Amino acid sequence: MDFKVIKEDAGSEARLGRLETAHGTVDTPVFMDVGTLGSVKALEPRDLVELGTQVVLGNTYHLLLRPGPEVIAAAGGLHRFMRWDGPILTDSGGFQVFSLARMRKFTEEGCRFNSHLDGHEFFLGPKESMAMQRTLGSDIAMVFDECLPYPCDRARAEASVARTVRWAERCRGEPRADGQQVFGIVQGGVYGDIRRRCAEELVKIGFDGYAVGGVSVGEPEEEMYRAVEASVPFLPKDRPRYVMGLGVMRQMAECVARGVDMFDCVIPTRIARHGTAITRRGNIAIKAAKYAFDQGPVEEGCECYCCRNFSRSYVRHLLACGEILGLRLLTIHNVLALNRFMADMRAAIAAGTFGEFRRALPPASANQLFETR
Amino acid sequence: MDFKVIKEDAGSEARLGRLETAHGTVDTPVFMDVGTLGSVKALEPRDLVELGTQVVLGNTYHLLLRPGPEVIAAAGGLHRFMRWDGPILTDSGGFQVFSLARMRKFTEEGCRFNSHLDGHEFFLGPKESMAMQRTLGSDIAMVFDECLPYPCDRARAEASVARTVRWAERCRGEPRADGQQVFGIVQGGVYGDIRRRCAEELVKIGFDGYAVGGVSVGEPEEEMYRAVEASVPFLPKDRPRYVMGLGVMRQMAECVARGVDMFDCVIPTRIARHGTAITRRGNIAIKAAKYAFDQGPVEEGCECYCCRNFSRSYVRHLLACGEILGLRLLTIHNVLALNRFMADMRAAIAAGTFGEFRRALPPASANQLFETR
Repeated sequence: MDFKVIKEDAGSEARLGRLETAHGTVDTPVFMDVGTLGSVKALEPRDLVELGTQVVLGNTYHLLLRPGPEVIAAAGGLHRFMRWDGPILTDSGGFQVFSLARMRKFTEEGCRFNSHLDGHEFFLGPKESMAMQRTLGSDIAMVFDECLPYPCDRARAEASVARTVRWAERCRGEPRADGQQVFGIVQGGVYGDIRRRCAEELVKIGFDGYAVGGVSVGEPEEEMYRAVEASVPFLPKDRPRYVMGLGVMRQMAECVARGVDMFDCVIPTRIARHGTAITRRGNIAIKAAKYAFDQGPVEEGCECYCCRNFSRSYVRHLLACGEILGLRLLTIHNVLALNRFMADMRAAIAAGTFGEFRRALPPASANQLFETR
Repeated sequence: MDFKVIKEDAGSEARLGRLETAHGTVDTPVFMDVGTLGSVKALEPRDLVELGTQVVLGNTYHLLLRPGPEVIAAAGGLHRFMRWDGPILTDSGGFQVFSLARMRKFTEEGCRFNSHLDGHEFFLGPKESMAMQRTLGSDIAMVFDECLPYPCDRARAEASVARTVRWAERCRGEPRADGQQVFGIVQGGVYGDIRRRCAEELVKIGFDGYAVGGVSVGEPEEEMYRAVEASVPFLPKDRPRYVMGLGVMRQMAECVARGVDMFDCVIPTRIARHGTAITRRGNIAIKAAKYAFDQGPVEEGCECYCCRNFSRSYVRHLLACGEILGLRLLTIHNVLALNRFMADMRAAIAAGTFGEFRRALPPASANQLFETR
C-alpha cells in the first residue's frame, strides 16, 4: 500500500500518515503549496526544499493555457520543466473552469470554454484532463469534476453530482503516467446525503485517494465542516483524504480532527504579495503605519530567512514601495509558517497532545485577513 | 592609503586595484549593483554574496523620499536596515533631482523640488545630501552636484560646473559617518576644457576618489569616451576613478583602458525585469518565440543558479506569464554575468592579456538591447 496510517489520535479522527509517491514520501497531515503556472509564486525549488515544502500543486487549467502541453512534453514533464524533484499533485481543471473560464458550455463529454486571458477556445473533459495530467507527469492526478456554486438548489446538485461520478469513472479508465495515482473528488454542495452517496459511489469505483471538493467557495464555516463530516466518514480509512482549497490554520486542524490528511491553498503566497503575514496568533498587515519603526521580526521566534534577518520596519518599507524583495520575503515567511504549523500538528498527533494543540489555536477569523482562494 | 594600484597594464591605462572601505575590501575594476530603495531589486543579501557582488549602491534621493531618514536612523544606518554587511556607496541625489524630480528651483544653497511620487516638497543641497548620506552611513559618499542635460550650451555648462565645484567644496567640509570616504564628481558635459578645469579644481580640494558624472545621458558613445578622456588624465593616479551610470560590457572595458576603476548601472537588474538576458556575445530577449522549446540554459557555460538549473523554455514561460520567479532568475543571471565579466577583466589585467580581452568583446550595441539607465 502506498498510504500508511502511522498513528491515530485517541480523542478525534486525526491521524498521522505516510504517503509514498513516485517522487518521494509525504508525511501527513500535509499542506501543499500551489505552483499555478509551474512555479510557487516568487519561490525557487531550492527555497521550497529549505522551507520544508513536501508537495507542489500544479494547475491543469493554467498550464493548458500557458505554456501548453507541447512545451511541457518537450521538457519531459512538469518535474523537469520546473526542476522540482519532489511530489507534484495536479488538479483537474474542474475548479478553474468553474471559477475562471468564460462562455462555458457543458456537455456529457466535458466543457467547452474560452480562456480568461485572451478568449482562445479550449475543451476540457475527463479524457482531456487526464491526458494533460499524464503529460504533466504528476504523482497524483485528480479526476475532472463539476464544481457547484454556493448556494445551489438540490435538483441541480443531484444532477451535477451524478455527472461528476460518471466523469470520475471515465477518468479512472484513462491511461496514466508511470506511477501516477488518481484521486476521486466528493461533491454535493451543502447536501449531506448527496455527498454521502457521491463518496460511496466513488469508493465503489475505487481510487488511490479521495478529496472533498466544492468547499471554501463562499459558504459559512459551519457548512464547510458539515460538508467534510458528510463525506469523510464514508471514505476508506486506509486511503488519504484531501480537502481542496483550504489553508487557514484553525480550519485545517478542525478538518484533521475529522480525519483529513491533505490540504492546499493559494493563501500563503497570495496574501504575502498583498503584504499580509501569517502568524500563529493571527495574520498581520505588515504595511500598517505602526510597524514603520518596528525593529522586531515579522514573527517572534520564527526561523525563516525573513525573520532571522530583517525587521518589520524594513519589510514594511519594501512592500510600501512595491519592491519585489518585500513580497518574496513575506512569501518565504508564510510558506514556512504553514509548513511549520503542519509539522507541529504532526508532532502533536505523534505525542498524543493533538487535543491541546487544537484547543490552543486562535479562531479561523484571526487568519482570514485578506483570505482569497 | 585606502586605495592601492596592484598592477598597471602595459598597453593601456588599465589598472588592477584594491580599495579598502569600512565594510571590506573591493577589487577593482568593479561593477557596483544598484540598490535604489535599500534592495538590489528582487535579490537578497545572501544572493549578492553568492553572486560575488562587492559593492551595493544606495540612492540618497529615493531613500530620502521613502522610507525617509528617521526610519533608517532608527535601524542604525542602511547596512543594518537592509542587512548588507559589505561596502555601500551612496550617490548624492544630484542625478535624480535632475532626472526625476518635478518643479525644481535651484539656488546657491541647493534645489527645492517636488517628489516624483506624490508631489511632496523636499530640499537637497550639499549640506542636506551629506547629512542624509551620513545617516545612511555609506562607506563612500558622493558630493552633491548639478547634472547637465545633453545637449547643453557652453555658457550654461560653465556656470553649472562652477557651482558644482563650489558645492563639492562645501560637501568636503560637512561632517561624515565613521570611516566614510567622499568622492568628487567631474562635470562639464561635452566640453573637454571645462571637464579638465573641473577635475583640476576638485583635485585641489582633495577627495578620496573621483567620479566622471553626466555621461550616458543621451550623448553619442564617442562623446562619452571623449568626456572620460577629458577628465581621467587630470585625476590623481593613486585615487580610484568612477564612471557613473555605465554598465555595458564593451563600454566598461573601454573606460578601464582609459584608467577607470569603478562603475554602476541599473542595467542588469532593470533589463532582467523586461526579459532581457546579458550574455558575453550580446543581449538576448528571452521572451522571443524562438526560445519556446529551447532546452538549453540562458547562457551556455554560465554557472549561475538560473543557468545551472533552468531552460530558456522555462524562463521564457515564466516571463511571458509575468511570474516573479522569471524576473528573479534573470536578475540572478544578469548580476552574475557582469560580476563574472569584471572578474575576467581583472584576471586579464593581472595576466597581461587585457589587450586581447578587450579586442575580443562585441561592440557596445550588442549589449544595448533595452538599455536603460
